[in-house]
Amino acid sequence: MADNENKNSKMVGKQSIQFANPPYIIAAASIAGKKEGEGPLGTMFDTVEEDSLVGKDSWEEAESEFMKKASQKVLQKAGLKSSDIRYLVGGDLLGQLIATSFGVEDLSVPLFGIYGACSTMGEAMSIGAILVDGGYADNVLAITSSHFAGAEKQFRFPLDYGNQRPYAASWTVTGSGAVIISPQKGKKQNESDADIVITGITTGKIVDYGIKDSMNMGAAMAPAAFETIMQNFIDLGIQPDYYDKIITGDLGYVGKNILVDLLKEKGYDISNNHMDCGIEIFDKDTQDTHAGGSGCGCSAITFSSYIINQMKSRTWNKVLFVPTGALLSQVSFNEGNAVPGIAHAVMVEAR
Amino acid sequence: MADNENKNSKMVGKQSIQFANPPYIIAAASIAGKKEGEGPLGTMFDTVEEDSLVGKDSWEEAESEFMKKASQKVLQKAGLKSSDIRYLVGGDLLGQLIATSFGVEDLSVPLFGIYGACSTMGEAMSIGAILVDGGYADNVLAITSSHFAGAEKQFRFPLDYGNQRPYAASWTVTGSGAVIISPQKGKKQNESDADIVITGITTGKIVDYGIKDSMNMGAAMAPAAFETIMQNFIDLGIQPDYYDKIITGDLGYVGKNILVDLLKEKGYDISNNHMDCGIEIFDKDTQDTHAGGSGCGCSAITFSSYIINQMKSRTWNKVLFVPTGALLSQVSFNEGNAVPGIAHAVMVEAR
Repeated sequence: MADNENKNSKMVGKQSIQFANPPYIIAAASIAGKKEGEGPLGTMFDTVEEDSLVGKDSWEEAESEFMKKASQKVLQKAGLKSSDIRYLVGGDLLGQLIATSFGVEDLSVPLFGIYGACSTMGEAMSIGAILVDGGYADNVLAITSSHFAGAEKQFRFPLDYGNQRPYAASWTVTGSGAVIISPQKGKKQNESDADIVITGITTGKIVDYGIKDSMNMGAAMAPAAFETIMQNFIDLGIQPDYYDKIITGDLGYVGKNILVDLLKEKGYDISNNHMDCGIEIFDKDTQDTHAGGSGCGCSAITFSSYIINQMKSRTWNKVLFVPTGALLSQVSFNEGNAVPGIAHAVMVEAR
Repeated sequence: MADNENKNSKMVGKQSIQFANPPYIIAAASIAGKKEGEGPLGTMFDTVEEDSLVGKDSWEEAESEFMKKASQKVLQKAGLKSSDIRYLVGGDLLGQLIATSFGVEDLSVPLFGIYGACSTMGEAMSIGAILVDGGYADNVLAITSSHFAGAEKQFRFPLDYGNQRPYAASWTVTGSGAVIISPQKGKKQNESDADIVITGITTGKIVDYGIKDSMNMGAAMAPAAFETIMQNFIDLGIQPDYYDKIITGDLGYVGKNILVDLLKEKGYDISNNHMDCGIEIFDKDTQDTHAGGSGCGCSAITFSSYIINQMKSRTWNKVLFVPTGALLSQVSFNEGNAVPGIAHAVMVEAR
C-alpha cells in the first residue's frame, strides 16, 4: 500500500477529510423568491423573482425554473459553458428529485443526484470538492433548490388547505443556490476579492433522537449539527475559535439554542461565532416566518450571497458551513416514524 | 498544476474515469423477496424472505428492513463491523429516501444519500469507487433497495386498488443488494475465486426523448443506456467485444430491443453480449411480470448474486454494469411531464 500512503493521509480522524489540493469556489449564484428578496439579505441575491411561479403552471415546474436560472447564472459568472462542467452534483426536497431532473436536464452534464434533505448543499459541495481535489473533474457544479409552496404540498398540505403553522415551524425558502468548484482560481469580479477554497469536510451520520414533530424540524436537526460540528473539532484537533463563523443551515431559533447548549455541555462554546442561515434570511418581527427559514435553498442562497461576500472581503476568513437536514417524508411522518437528522460540514477559507 | 498531472490523467474522454488504483469489491450481499426467490436466480441469493412485510407494519418499514439485512449480511461476509465503514453511499425509490434513512441509521456511518432512480446502484458504486481510489475512504458500503408494494404505492396506486398492468409495465423487484468497496483485497470465501475490481466508470447525463408513459419505463430508459454505453466505448476507445457482458439494469424486453437497435444504428453490435437484469430475474412464462423486473433492487441483487458469481468463477472477466433509471415521480407524471432516463456505467473486472 506504499503508493496509497499519501492518499490515505487525506482521511482525518473518524469522519473528516482534509484536501491536499483545496478546490476553489470560483463562482456562486443565488436566485431568490419575492419574500426572500424582502428579507435582510434581499439586496445580496443575484436575482429576486417577483413571481413565485416564474411563469410556470405548477410549483414543481417553478422550482425547476429557479434551479435552471441558478445554473445559468453561476455559469455566466464563472465565464463557463455547460460543456465545461464535468459533473453536476445536486438535489432538492421533492420526491424523486424532480426539481433537479427537470431543472438541469438541458445542461446535459453527467449527474450525481443526491438527497440529504436540507443538508443537500453540504453534501453537494462535499462530493464536488472530492471530485476536484482527487482529479476526477475539472469543474463541478453543485446546486440545490427549494420552494415554499412545493415543500408545503410535498411534506404537509397544499397551501389552499389553509393549514395553520405552529411557532416552532420554519418557512421553506424559495430559491436556488449554486457554486462552481474548480482546481484553478477563477477570474475575479473584483481584483481585491479573496480566493475562496474548500479545505476539508466532515460528513454526517444519521442522528435520531426520536423527535416526531414535523413542525419542529429545528429540534430534529440540532442533534445532527451538534454531532457533526463536534466531530469536526475532534477530527481536526481544533477549538470553536478556529473559525470566524460556524454557520448552520436552517436550525432556526429553536434549533440554534439546542445546538449551542448541546455543545456547551461538551465544553465547546460556539455562542459567539455561531450563525444560522434560517435566522438570517428572514426578519423575525416583520415577515411572520416563526422559527426561521428552512429548505435546501435556505443555506444554498445564503452561502451563495451573504456568506461568500463576507469571505471575499475577508471579513470572515475561516467558516465552517454546516447545512442541516431533517430526514422525513409525508409517508414516514404519517406512519408515525421519528424525524432523524443529518448535517454535512464544509470547511471554507478565504485566501 | 504540475502536481495535478497524474490525477487529471484519471479523466478519460468526456464522461469517464479510469481508476489508477482499481478498488476491490470485497463482498456482496443480496436479500430477495419471495417472488424473486421463485425466479431463475432464486438459489443464488444470500437470503430469500418469504414474508414480504418481514414482520413489519408497512411496506416502507419492510423495505428498510430488507436494507438493514443486506447491510448486516455484507458486513458479515466481509468480516467487518459497521465502524470499519468510512462512508455509506445509498438510496432507494421512495420519496425522500426513507427506506435508506431508516434502514441504515443503526449502522451509524457517515452517509451520502443519493438518488438515481433505478440507476442508483451504479451511482453508489461509482461514488464508492472514487472515494476508495482517491484515498478518501478505506471501506465504502454501497447499497440500494426497492419493494414491489412500496413502489406501486409510491409511483402508481396502492395494491388494494387492483390497478391493471399493461404488457409494457415492469415488476418492481423486492430486495436489497449491497457491496463493500475497499483498497485492499478481502478475504475470499473460496481460494480459487477471482478478485473483483472496479476499473472505471462512465457517469450518465439525463436523457429525455419525451416519453410520457410511466408504464413503459424500458422505452424511457433505453436512450439513456444507449448514450452512456456508447460514450464508454468512445471515451475508452474500445469496441463492444472488449466486454464479456454488457449488463443493463432494468430495461426489460421492450427497452432491450430499443437499446440494441439504437447502438446498431451507430455501428455498435451488442446483441451477442448484452444482458438485462430485469429480464434475468423473473421467468417470463410463469411469473406474469410482463416486461421484466425493475427497481433499484433489480440490478443490485442481480449484481450481488449472479453477476459477481460469474465473475468470481472467471466465466465473465470483463463486465460493463449499467443500472438504468427513469426519473419520474407520481407528481411529475400526473402533471404531464415526460419521463427522462439516466444510466451510470461501472467497469468491473475479474483478476
